[in-house]
Amino acid sequence: MSYTNFPSKLLENAVAEFSKLPGIGRKTALRLVLHLLNQPKEDVHKFGSSITQLRDEIKHCSSCYNISDTEICDICANPKRDHETICVVESIRDVMSIERTQQYNGIYHVLGGIISPMDGIGPSDLQIDPLIVKANEGKMKEVILALSTTMEGDTTNFYLYKKLNKFNINITTIARGVSIGDELEYTDEITLGRSILHRTPFDQNL
Amino acid sequence: MSYTNFPSKLLENAVAEFSKLPGIGRKTALRLVLHLLNQPKEDVHKFGSSITQLRDEIKHCSSCYNISDTEICDICANPKRDHETICVVESIRDVMSIERTQQYNGIYHVLGGIISPMDGIGPSDLQIDPLIVKANEGKMKEVILALSTTMEGDTTNFYLYKKLNKFNINITTIARGVSIGDELEYTDEITLGRSILHRTPFDQNL
Repeated sequence: MSYTNFPSKLLENAVAEFSKLPGIGRKTALRLVLHLLNQPKEDVHKFGSSITQLRDEIKHCSSCYNISDTEICDICANPKRDHETICVVESIRDVMSIERTQQYNGIYHVLGGIISPMDGIGPSDLQIDPLIVKANEGKMKEVILALSTTMEGDTTNFYLYKKLNKFNINITTIARGVSIGDELEYTDEITLGRSILHRTPFDQNL
Repeated sequence: MSYTNFPSKLLENAVAEFSKLPGIGRKTALRLVLHLLNQPKEDVHKFGSSITQLRDEIKHCSSCYNISDTEICDICANPKRDHETICVVESIRDVMSIERTQQYNGIYHVLGGIISPMDGIGPSDLQIDPLIVKANEGKMKEVILALSTTMEGDTTNFYLYKKLNKFNINITTIARGVSIGDELEYTDEITLGRSILHRTPFDQNL
């Protein structure tokens, strides 16, 4: 039987493109493509151009490397924010997560990744040099290292600490401890150990 | 804080488009969009055009309504296939599933949906009339109704049966029964009941 796969090259091509996306297998890709096939032409064009336009026209803030439609992003351009406190994050997703907490009023520095020798990502692939330049200009009071608690995160933290240590800057990391809503019984011992080591004064308002 | 959502309209737009896809929420959409942002420009353009091109240029076989790059699909154009046996399916996905079994040598008729009053889909929204026309031409010996075993599938089966019954055509449905690999204990009683009612002679070769 000659017809074992897709009845159309165009269909096969679209499915192949969709299944390149992370977490999307061939079956899901086919479902998504067939869904789009059933949509009006203009909607499908809007879908296609939304992503190509984003890729073509996206800018990164020239100060913090966050994604931005303008030369300087809204956060860096905001005079009400504390420009002497810089939170170092891996990606724009982390900026969005921290912003959503509404607990932070400083600015950010987006590394664009994390040191990961396994994936061939070294310090030179990340926006580390601009951070050192900023530190050298003497305008920073505090750098908050807000990276993942993985081996790669710890490696990157250590690398940044070594680079920033010679400046007169307060280097902090986000608190590690038991998540809110977690039961102690199910908390891993490293987290629990750290949470006891770094215990904080009791605050009845929290 | 003014910045509660996306740092870029372009990004927000792309995420909104992706989250229109079935089963894709805002978080997954953001992950997919950020993944595409990290890809080379030409790859993103290939992705975008694969789907718009498909939507613009896709053809349906003028005989069976299967998706096809040509006026008549490969299956309908194949002289080795039995053109007097027509398998009625809901969508092109079902054609692909049945073809994969390599057990069927007839041709297909793709309805393009299923009668579903809840979703506002009636017989006139489906390719039912062309099937009746084909039946009327007297070239069919057998129509196999291969629709889902849902209420909508049964409704559509019944509607098609009423329409096709007046012609001298053998109307069959795919066998219902216990799936291969299933344990009887966990099979629902309707399926089990039908499988006993429609028992078949034992064949030691199967």
